[in-house]
Order: sequence, then structure tokens, then C-alpha cells
Amino acid sequence: MIVEFSIVPIGVGTSLSPYVAECLNIVEKSGLRYQLTPMGTVLEGEGEDVMPVVMRCHARVLEMSQRVVTSIKIDDRRDRPGDMDRKVRSVKEKMGKG
Amino acid sequence: MIVEFSIVPIGVGTSLSPYVAECLNIVEKSGLRYQLTPMGTVLEGEGEDVMPVVMRCHARVLEMSQRVVTSIKIDDRRDRPGDMDRKVRSVKEKMGKG
Amino acid sequence: MIVEFSIVPIGVGTSLSPYVAECLNIVEKSGLRYQLTPMGTVLEGEGEDVMPVVMRCHARVLEMSQRVVTSIKIDDRRDRPGDMDRKVRSVKEKMGKG
Amino acid sequence: MIVEFSIVPIGVGTSLSPYVAECLNIVEKSGLRYQLTPMGTVLEGEGEDVMPVVMRCHARVLEMSQRVVTSIKIDDRRDRPGDMDRKVRSVKEKMGKG
Repeated sequence: MIVEFSIVPIGVGTSLSPYVAECLNIVEKSGLRYQLTPMGTVLEGEGEDVMPVVMRCHARVLEMSQRVVTSIKIDDRRDRPGDMDRKVRSVKEKMGKG
Repeated sequence: MIVEFSIVPIGVGTSLSPYVAECLNIVEKSGLRYQLTPMGTVLEGEGEDVMPVVMRCHARVLEMSQRVVTSIKIDDRRDRPGDMDRKVRSVKEKMGKG
Repeated sequence: MIVEFSIVPIGVGTSLSPYVAECLNIVEKSGLRYQLTPMGTVLEGEGEDVMPVVMRCHARVLEMSQRVVTSIKIDDRRDRPGDMDRKVRSVKEKMGKG
Repeated sequence: MIVEFSIVPIGVGTSLSPYVAECLNIVEKSGLRYQLTPMGTVLEGEGEDVMPVVMRCHARVLEMSQRVVTSIKIDDRRDRPGDMDRKVRSVKEKMGKG
């Protein structure tokens, strides 16, 4: 599956990048393929591998703050494994930019 | 934590209520407190209890279709357990309608 | 269309209900049908009526804080107008609880 | 503001890239800065410029299908304009990778 997540700590200052950096360290240690976007982090892998990493990030940011709002979006299909690069490439091909 | 989720099967017809009903049966069996809204299902409980139920629903809808997009939003806080009713009541009080 | 939205101010305290209450006052003045849930506010109406109300709430919470993360989910269909109550009823019927 | 959106047509096949490509053509014509990610499209600009582009994409995908679920996330702040690149760079610096 492909999973995008973002974690917003409540009751801290307006700079969220330290929390994102903390999560990305957890993601990097997991060995999963990932991509940092301006609005979240995208992971690729099997569900049993990916979701625990997301929940570990959630728990870590909650330790660093008092309240957390976490958004997760999963794109999962049965016919083939999730592939972040392929999704982007497929759109570009259809735009005549492949 | 309080968790809202919605699961959209891709490549099926435009009526999604059979899939939501299937999920709600899973949710009811879990014994967790829940609320069905026009845009999703809200669960309340400990993270280790809630997230497996969400992922069970996700897996079930994926069995019934070919591809699934699942959105999950978590509101989690350290100072007290999540309480769906309290959140709504707290807003109404501030509107002078408590 | 049916629209669910939630607005999270960043850099304020952990209590978000004053901001939600402020939004609900804007929603009430709009005359649109709405429902407050534990995780957001659901509106029903034509797109040209609904989205400006959401953006007015967003602007208002941004005035009250420094940074805001707003999530919006739209369910829109061509064959009939959005109907919040019908969506919930349709699921309950399929569960044998209509 | 920075806005991420994704539009899921319901009742069509499992391949969504033609719909995303259609939206990206609309986005390109708008002249706004954007980034295509594996899970959505990220736009940067003033709210009055950005939101109409998102809603134009939504309307276009609805024309191509029967029902559409659109997710929008807005990150908006008062102290400075939204800057997609800066957000990513800021996280990388905090990871010691700037």
C-alpha cells in the first residue's frame, strides 16, 4: 500500500518542522521507501510494515506535545503492490510528458 | 483516542452504503463506542483497540473490491481519554447552547 | 454536495472548542443545513453556497491564531442533490436497522 | 496558502491517472506553482487564486464520472506566504540534511 500521513501537534508553537524531522528519523530507521512532500510524508510497503511506522510517529509527537491530530490516507490495491513512482509516472504519461 | 475513518472502494458502482454497512458490522462486533456520520464513522477507545478495527474494515472492503482509498483522522491527547460526546458538548456550551 | 470540514489552529492552547464554536456561529448564520460531529462539521447545499462558508470559517480562525490547518472532504454527485440524512439512513437500512 | 488536494471519481474503473492528468492540465493553465505527489497535487498561492482552481478540477472530474469524493488540506499562515520548497527544506535542515 501507499500511505500519506501528517501529524499536527496542538498547543505548541507555529513551527512544525521539528516534529516532522523527528518522524522522518523514525521513518528512515524503518527502511521503508518514503517521500517527503510539502504537506506530508508518503510511505510505500506492506500494510503490516507501514501502519506501525505511522503509529510510532504519532506516539512520538504525542510525547513531545499534549495533543495531536494525525491524518492518514491509504491507497491500497489487490492487483499489484503500491508503487509511488509508478503513480506519478502514469499521470505524466497521460499528460504527454512521460 | 477518537478516530474518524471512511473507506472508498474504487471501480465499483456509485452506491457506497453496502460497504459502509459491512464496516459497521465489524465495528459493532468490536464493542467500541462509535457514531455514524454522513461522511464517516467515528470510533472512541484506546489506540491499540481502535486502529486494528479500522484496518479490519479496510481489509474487508478491499476484499469486496479491487482498490480502496481509506482516510483516517486521529485526535489523541495525553491529559485525558478521548470522549466523543464531550467534544460536541464543549462546543455547544461555548455557543451558549449547552 | 455534502462537505465535512475541520479547522485546526496552530500555536494556540490544546482546547479547540472556542474556534469550533466561532465557526458554527458562521455556519448558523449561513442558513445551510449542518451537523456537528466529534471530528468536524458537515454541511449540505450547493457548491457555490457551501464552499464560501467553509472558507469564511477558515479565514476567521486564521484571524484568531497565526497558522491554520484546514481539512475539507467533499462528496458530490450528479444524479441527485447531497442529502446527509439519506446517507446515514441508507447505511442503517443495509444493516437491517432502518 | 499551500493546498493539497486529491479527487477520487466513484463508479469508474480502478485506474485514476486519466482523471489526475485532466486536473493537472487545469492546474498548469492556472500558472500556479504546483507539485504532483504520489497521493495528491500540492498548489501554492493566494487563497482567492488557489481554491477556484481546486474547485474547477473537482467540477471537471464530476463531469467525467457520476460521483466524486474530493479531499483538500490547506496550510495557511499569517506571518508569511506559503512556500512549498521552504517547508521541505526546513525539515531537511532539522534532520541535519539541509
